Amino acid sequence: MTTATAVSTDIVPSFIEDSWWAPDQQVLDSGNSTRVRDASTGEVLAVVCTAGLDIGAAVRFARSTGQAELGKLTFHERALKLKELAQFLNGHREPLYELSARTGATRGDSMVDIDGGIGVLFTFGSKGRRELPNSQVIVDGPAENLSKDGSFLGTHIYTRIPGAAVQINAFNFPVWGMLEKLAPAFLSGVPTIVKPATPTGYLTAAVVKLIVQSNILPKGSLQLISGPARDLLDHLDYRDLVAFTGSASTANHLRSHSNVMHGGVRFSSETDSLNAAILGPDAVPGTPEFEAFIRSLVTEVTVKAGQKCTGIRRTIVPKALVQDVVDAARARIEERVTLGDPRAEGVTMGALASLEQLEGVRDAVRELMSSGGELALGSLEAPPVTRADGTVGPADGGAFMAPVLLTWDDVEAGALHSVEAFGPVASVIGYDNPAHAVHLAALGSGSLVATVCTNDPAVARELVIGIAAHHGRVLMLNREDARSSTGHGSPVPHLTHGGPGRAGGGEELGGMRSVLHHMQRTALQGSPNMLTAVTGIWHTGADRNFDGVHPFRKNLAELRIGDAVRSDLRQVTLEDITAFAETTGDKFYAHTNEEAAAANPFFPGIVAHGYLLLSWAAGLFVDPAPGPVLANYGLENLRFLTPVAAGDSIRVTLTAKRITPRETDEYGEVAWDAVLTNQSDEIVATYDVLTLVEK
Amino acid sequence: MTTATAVSTDIVPSFIEDSWWAPDQQVLDSGNSTRVRDASTGEVLAVVCTAGLDIGAAVRFARSTGQAELGKLTFHERALKLKELAQFLNGHREPLYELSARTGATRGDSMVDIDGGIGVLFTFGSKGRRELPNSQVIVDGPAENLSKDGSFLGTHIYTRIPGAAVQINAFNFPVWGMLEKLAPAFLSGVPTIVKPATPTGYLTAAVVKLIVQSNILPKGSLQLISGPARDLLDHLDYRDLVAFTGSASTANHLRSHSNVMHGGVRFSSETDSLNAAILGPDAVPGTPEFEAFIRSLVTEVTVKAGQKCTGIRRTIVPKALVQDVVDAARARIEERVTLGDPRAEGVTMGALASLEQLEGVRDAVRELMSSGGELALGSLEAPPVTRADGTVGPADGGAFMAPVLLTWDDVEAGALHSVEAFGPVASVIGYDNPAHAVHLAALGSGSLVATVCTNDPAVARELVIGIAAHHGRVLMLNREDARSSTGHGSPVPHLTHGGPGRAGGGEELGGMRSVLHHMQRTALQGSPNMLTAVTGIWHTGADRNFDGVHPFRKNLAELRIGDAVRSDLRQVTLEDITAFAETTGDKFYAHTNEEAAAANPFFPGIVAHGYLLLSWAAGLFVDPAPGPVLANYGLENLRFLTPVAAGDSIRVTLTAKRITPRETDEYGEVAWDAVLTNQSDEIVATYDVLTLVEK
Repeated sequence: MTTATAVSTDIVPSFIEDSWWAPDQQVLDSGNSTRVRDASTGEVLAVVCTAGLDIGAAVRFARSTGQAELGKLTFHERALKLKELAQFLNGHREPLYELSARTGATRGDSMVDIDGGIGVLFTFGSKGRRELPNSQVIVDGPAENLSKDGSFLGTHIYTRIPGAAVQINAFNFPVWGMLEKLAPAFLSGVPTIVKPATPTGYLTAAVVKLIVQSNILPKGSLQLISGPARDLLDHLDYRDLVAFTGSASTANHLRSHSNVMHGGVRFSSETDSLNAAILGPDAVPGTPEFEAFIRSLVTEVTVKAGQKCTGIRRTIVPKALVQDVVDAARARIEERVTLGDPRAEGVTMGALASLEQLEGVRDAVRELMSSGGELALGSLEAPPVTRADGTVGPADGGAFMAPVLLTWDDVEAGALHSVEAFGPVASVIGYDNPAHAVHLAALGSGSLVATVCTNDPAVARELVIGIAAHHGRVLMLNREDARSSTGHGSPVPHLTHGGPGRAGGGEELGGMRSVLHHMQRTALQGSPNMLTAVTGIWHTGADRNFDGVHPFRKNLAELRIGDAVRSDLRQVTLEDITAFAETTGDKFYAHTNEEAAAANPFFPGIVAHGYLLLSWAAGLFVDPAPGPVLANYGLENLRFLTPVAAGDSIRVTLTAKRITPRETDEYGEVAWDAVLTNQSDEIVATYDVLTLVEK
Repeated sequence: MTTATAVSTDIVPSFIEDSWWAPDQQVLDSGNSTRVRDASTGEVLAVVCTAGLDIGAAVRFARSTGQAELGKLTFHERALKLKELAQFLNGHREPLYELSARTGATRGDSMVDIDGGIGVLFTFGSKGRRELPNSQVIVDGPAENLSKDGSFLGTHIYTRIPGAAVQINAFNFPVWGMLEKLAPAFLSGVPTIVKPATPTGYLTAAVVKLIVQSNILPKGSLQLISGPARDLLDHLDYRDLVAFTGSASTANHLRSHSNVMHGGVRFSSETDSLNAAILGPDAVPGTPEFEAFIRSLVTEVTVKAGQKCTGIRRTIVPKALVQDVVDAARARIEERVTLGDPRAEGVTMGALASLEQLEGVRDAVRELMSSGGELALGSLEAPPVTRADGTVGPADGGAFMAPVLLTWDDVEAGALHSVEAFGPVASVIGYDNPAHAVHLAALGSGSLVATVCTNDPAVARELVIGIAAHHGRVLMLNREDARSSTGHGSPVPHLTHGGPGRAGGGEELGGMRSVLHHMQRTALQGSPNMLTAVTGIWHTGADRNFDGVHPFRKNLAELRIGDAVRSDLRQVTLEDITAFAETTGDKFYAHTNEEAAAANPFFPGIVAHGYLLLSWAAGLFVDPAPGPVLANYGLENLRFLTPVAAGDSIRVTLTAKRITPRETDEYGEVAWDAVLTNQSDEIVATYDVLTLVEK
């Protein structure tokens, strides 16, 4: 096994069918490959090439071995493997930082990519066990009763798609970009094929090397195509999913493939957009909001040299404050930003990923300027930079660009809202009133994210509700969260990432929402017994097992869905109600004043406290001696349906509804369906009792 | 105002910009129109034509007036209008049945279409008020804490898309097809433009006439294009949604439009598929399951003359039972099915929608037969039918076809799993074992629905989990639900309708899920106060208002989110715990036996009952005298976090979290955030208290 870094200075290999693959020397010699260079120096680092690689075999391997191996694991088992992988990668970050510096990334930039990616694995490893069942089917929503007699119910289940999750990624986050898509796909049980972008794919390959080396993921869970995707899409169909991140034009090209257009391939795209940051009318210079806004703007323009699909491109501020914003941003950039080789001491802003990228950004700025944009800060000339050796001067072969701010007389100019300079470039424009700000933000035709910076709740509400449907994420920045905010440009694993229109129309992350993107939702109809059999959750109307053994005496190995106990009736007297009112202090008139209670539209007169009924129900169902049931840790979905008056009686029926053994503890969760009925078998209350039960 | 039926015998008008529109006579005379005929007799009923119609104006009107008018209403107000509309249409069904007969539909078929469509309005009218907030923003999932100090949270909101919901519908359900899409679009606040299929669009137009006449829906909520869609898609962008139902080829054509491919138009399609019905190995002749299976098969082949995208096309049965299934289906068809003009007495199966449809079905059957299908029942010859006057004989000009069953030697023949005869046609094929049945069902490459007919839970589980990812809906049929089932072919408004791959990859209905399809999900980050301001739901960490007035003394007009009360501490003694155990009967050892309790991994020794804490908390927060708070009707999300031992004290803080006034009652729901803390301010328990409060 070569080390993670060694491989990347030579041929960047692919990993297909559980084996590393590299092109023949003959193919390389024929020139059928692409050279990859250090962003700061132009030095050749590696070559990539997929000529001769059997890409169809990767798809077949994912559908066969990958699906089979992942299918052996439950959601919790997969989540634990993600946690284990996160811990492993966490211990192997140093060589990745070194490689990352070659992409032009500063240490801070690298942490966003590498630590950020590992963080996604940790989050999914943890949320997967907290929020998913320890099985392979997810139930979506409560069951619907579709018949008068309760014999025909409907519900929805999610099962994994039966194909491959193909990632086609952008160059700017070679580690996070892979891991943020791998985590939900893996958790859902769908094998992944990663196709990173050529300029920085060597860093992705280094991470895949580590993952393979760790031996944590089952065979077929992850394959890597280093180099052109070639005929990849020709092999996909409705069983598969493509998650693309990159330019809108590449997205359009992929979306035009007949297997996507007509073949049912699930296609999700996340593309650059003209993200806005809106400064509220209250956030004038001197306010904490103004300060936070400027900090955020400068961060977004300089981190990753502005190469972030979530970066701020349009700064929308009160008309009178345009110059203040430009001046404040200039001052902060002059004070804080040192441009140079990320390996040099003190550098806070690195190079673009390649000279091609640099030229593209310069072209875009020229187009913006020819459409009315005026340079308010920076220039297109090559800036002096701090070189790796600490000297300052021009960097030949390095893809450096200093921050640029543009201002506009015509705030509706088409280019301003459609031409993206994917680098350290933003426009600053003025609005007349909040409605105008909403209008301007929407001219971006769909964006990944916007910041709304105000400390006025009414302004926040107007701006956010106004722009929400045009955005995948909105960050509200004010003095309360300025320090703790994760920032405009940073998607977090808990929240969705993506946006409508120009932003690609896709959605990623968002916690378990992204797991569901890798699954098919299926409506399921049948009798309560059949729904119980398929979902593993007991449904009202399904058989109960009253076998004489109290279910609280059964551990998880013995307990079965449907195991139940039904209590005798216990009569409630007025004295009981009065005593309960006295001891608890709950002397609400419905429990203490016959006349007032009878005047209430819902009660016949004095009624028992709901909490009396709950407490008595526990007394009726509990098995008091020590046993496998360790604790009642909560309760869900409680509804009081029929009032209980003095003289009425109640009984409880408790049925094992959902059993979730934990992987890492000696116990698990059991949810019990509880139904309180009265002497006439009317339903008094229903709820789920949540308990911890020993294995 | 003309009557609903009169208009349809002449020109079928469009309804655009709140006005009825019909083409100039000159345009019609020039032949620029299409004639529509009675399905049973061939008589010309109407002409349709959109030449000269400004379709772009419809889109602009939806985005402006439609959005503005719908934006004045909350979800509950819209839901009530749907209910009102359902009631209105319910009283005007007779003329619709008459028109429906002209499409070839029997009374039973018409009820599926007309009553079924009205039923969707009722369901959404009711569910919309039960399941959505009485506002305009839907919150998705619990808030996520994104910072250590709780000052930065994340959540997700749904807001309506800012454009039009365009329906492009199939000919087979001219009423249901419109209403099942209108209901969720309207509820979400998105205006609809309907483009029905030409052969039966006169019936859709008649319903739109009634809707306009009712004056219930706000201006711009509904527009109708009767005739070719022409340049409709040219006017759409990422703000709009197209929901298509029809053939896969038309779906592909629409999906290729550059506004869909590159412009971000949300496109959902529901296309015909080769739906399967699988008979379990246990369901042999003589079992209730076999009987139910045959009934279902005959129903699906004959209802709507088999013109249902959800119809059974592939009957997958144990190999040994193929002939039994064919024989039983033949016997039932001979006994029960009378083919003819729906207006004649005793007719149970009508005509196809048009002679063109009939020819298409015959062609498909010929293709199936040339690929190996053998006629086991029926033929391609024109059948004798019962005419409108009750005589029996050939029906010249009528699109009639008798039921056809095909059997196959090669059960993997490509055409069998891909060629759809959209009429009274199904194949019957044999499988070796359940895994083989799953394999055969999946050869349909994605279907809307499958039936799994078995009374064996293990077989049901294997078949359902095996085929789920290839299907949008699975119906489990057994003796328990054979009578109450809504049937293989009937989507219900509560459950999703659509399917992967060949079935179009879309999703409709599914209760409030379909409302969300008309909305944009946006991740929202900010401080608790800002999240509270935007969502209208109090978030932990946001300001509370302790203004000295107990919030239980405020009615809905006075109560504000954040209004709160905090109690004094109350100490819990061992005597209290013992007394509670005695009166409730809950003598669980953790409350009664110090030694056993201390041995429990979660308790320090004897602890107070969770229900004691809840009961005392009520005693601490309740304001006893009659007032606006009428009842505590339930409780949600209860978690016990820190045990309370004898000597500890508790207090409760109650904060108004969510306020939902009802439209039709003198009260509404208020959810209160309840937090129990102990003498050290540790959180003992958290939950939501659900109350009814007077307006």
